[in-house]
Amino acid sequence: MWHETKASIILSVQFPIIQAGMAGGVTTPELVAAVSNAGALGMIGAGYMTADALKSAIQAVKAGTNKPFGVNLFVPEIPKVKDGELQRANELLDPVREKLGMEKVHMKPAVDVSVFFEQVEIVIRYQVPVCSFTFGIPPESVIKKLKARGTILIGTATTVEEAILNEKSGMDLVVAQGSEAGGHRGSFEGDFAHAMIGTMALVPQVADAVSIPVIAAGGIMDGRGILSSLILGAEAVQMGTAFLTTAESGAHALHKKAVLSATEDRTVVTSTFSGKPARGIENGFIREMTEYEKELPPYPIQNILTQEIRKTAAKQGNADYLAMWSGQNPRLSRELPADELVHRLAGEVDVLIGRIKEK
Amino acid sequence: MWHETKASIILSVQFPIIQAGMAGGVTTPELVAAVSNAGALGMIGAGYMTADALKSAIQAVKAGTNKPFGVNLFVPEIPKVKDGELQRANELLDPVREKLGMEKVHMKPAVDVSVFFEQVEIVIRYQVPVCSFTFGIPPESVIKKLKARGTILIGTATTVEEAILNEKSGMDLVVAQGSEAGGHRGSFEGDFAHAMIGTMALVPQVADAVSIPVIAAGGIMDGRGILSSLILGAEAVQMGTAFLTTAESGAHALHKKAVLSATEDRTVVTSTFSGKPARGIENGFIREMTEYEKELPPYPIQNILTQEIRKTAAKQGNADYLAMWSGQNPRLSRELPADELVHRLAGEVDVLIGRIKEK
Repeated sequence: MWHETKASIILSVQFPIIQAGMAGGVTTPELVAAVSNAGALGMIGAGYMTADALKSAIQAVKAGTNKPFGVNLFVPEIPKVKDGELQRANELLDPVREKLGMEKVHMKPAVDVSVFFEQVEIVIRYQVPVCSFTFGIPPESVIKKLKARGTILIGTATTVEEAILNEKSGMDLVVAQGSEAGGHRGSFEGDFAHAMIGTMALVPQVADAVSIPVIAAGGIMDGRGILSSLILGAEAVQMGTAFLTTAESGAHALHKKAVLSATEDRTVVTSTFSGKPARGIENGFIREMTEYEKELPPYPIQNILTQEIRKTAAKQGNADYLAMWSGQNPRLSRELPADELVHRLAGEVDVLIGRIKEK
Repeated sequence: MWHETKASIILSVQFPIIQAGMAGGVTTPELVAAVSNAGALGMIGAGYMTADALKSAIQAVKAGTNKPFGVNLFVPEIPKVKDGELQRANELLDPVREKLGMEKVHMKPAVDVSVFFEQVEIVIRYQVPVCSFTFGIPPESVIKKLKARGTILIGTATTVEEAILNEKSGMDLVVAQGSEAGGHRGSFEGDFAHAMIGTMALVPQVADAVSIPVIAAGGIMDGRGILSSLILGAEAVQMGTAFLTTAESGAHALHKKAVLSATEDRTVVTSTFSGKPARGIENGFIREMTEYEKELPPYPIQNILTQEIRKTAAKQGNADYLAMWSGQNPRLSRELPADELVHRLAGEVDVLIGRIKEK
């Protein structure tokens, strides 16, 4: 059975397929439960959730499935921002606010690191089987606490060095996020531009360098992507964009539509929305803000500054000011119920393996 | 037999493995002949060759093998350069010339498109079985002439659209060059930045869009890369960096050494050497010139301007001023005779397939 891998055994899932923990409301409890019920691993994208919201999401998932699922957390960072920088960033957003008919409220975002620790407590209290991390490695105390409760931990790496750091920290598995991936880059060591390694190159180099199972991510959309990842040395795959367009996904209808109709050359890596590089479909906001990209405050400051803009654009149905994350493989996106997608993915791998066996 | 694919049949080779036509002296006749003798397709990188040099290279390859081989040509372009731009580009190179003890000769490069047509004549006259093209699609008359003589034609694409244009032009096969690839980007439609698609994402999308066999390129270094490419929908692979470090390769010893010791995060895509984006190992020249990248004249002007610098650096053994092209997978590079590499690659695929069949 191709789907019995080191990762599927550790995660106690039928298929070594992880639905990426996309933040910002994409991973509804319905999506997570449907994916887990179908034999893959559903994942709550809790990056932007309050502890209370996460608690509710976990309870809703548990009401929908008794299979394993996971929670993805963002390891917090406290950026240094000068007052002038914030003023400038707010001014740069004023024309956008004007276009959307918004008040030009200049925010002074406060970064509250304690939310992360509250999220961890919720993960522990509600005995979430799997917890994955993006944007760095959590403090040792957090790792110890989670491991003591038997939580399976997944780290995220965009280079070999980051994968080794994850392994050393005690992560049970590590995601190797190739440059094709949609959404935020997980890079946390060195500058992100040097960590834009394609999945085809990243996965085997990471697999050779660490002993923990590797989860391939970036550009994987169908059975071809899954089986080729396993051959490259991965023990599982993580797929975001593929699940973003499913029926249960909470992505905005315009976002789904944009991904379903996009071509491979329409995405860009931009930090204009959040202050951290992320891959999404190029739209008006990105085109207008890219020239100021280097002046913008770091994550999560810029993310907080643009939050109301994105919310307003969503309400108004204006795709030009939404952050429409997508990987580089949108031509392969499908509009399906999530369980149907998981079954098709597994079936596609079966067919490919059957063909290899015939040869 | 995994190695009997549409591409291997068309190309009349045992293994669907093409040694990329790396220009600038890397593809010695010894390398090309050794690769072809081993059952893969050797390729003369004739991009910068005079017709006479190409003739000699073809004759030398034919003396070394009676197996099929190919020639790679650069489709010429005539850039518009203002006088001031040229002056500025020369001035920017003066500090480099000084460091290398060179005379500050300000060149006025002339682009001679006729060389390409002379190369094509040589390919026809010496009945080279396979001719591949980079940087665009050759004129219809050239395609017709070559096809009339039975030459098998391979185009290069970095997007789905470019692949479709290649198919429409009459190419028999098309290389899908992922963003991991070393050396020059083959992009010829739109801006190259939007055409930096990872191999994992590019290959299946191209394979779905064209009927001609697809050749995967970018980050492929071993049996894992080959088999995963075939699963993604390719009918063959093209490997450059993997052959660059072989014994027969004409790459400078410092270049080989740099690739053999590089990590995945040490390459960058730069147009500082040639005026056209290419992936190579970051060194002094790239670091010094990157800030002026947007001012530099287009390919091939900048390439001609830096030629003497690169030659001088090669003689002096100064790796900081060599163009050391490399893909994003240098950790998997090996120092082997070329035939041994081909045999190992094929053996690795055999082992992987054996494992799949056992499961």
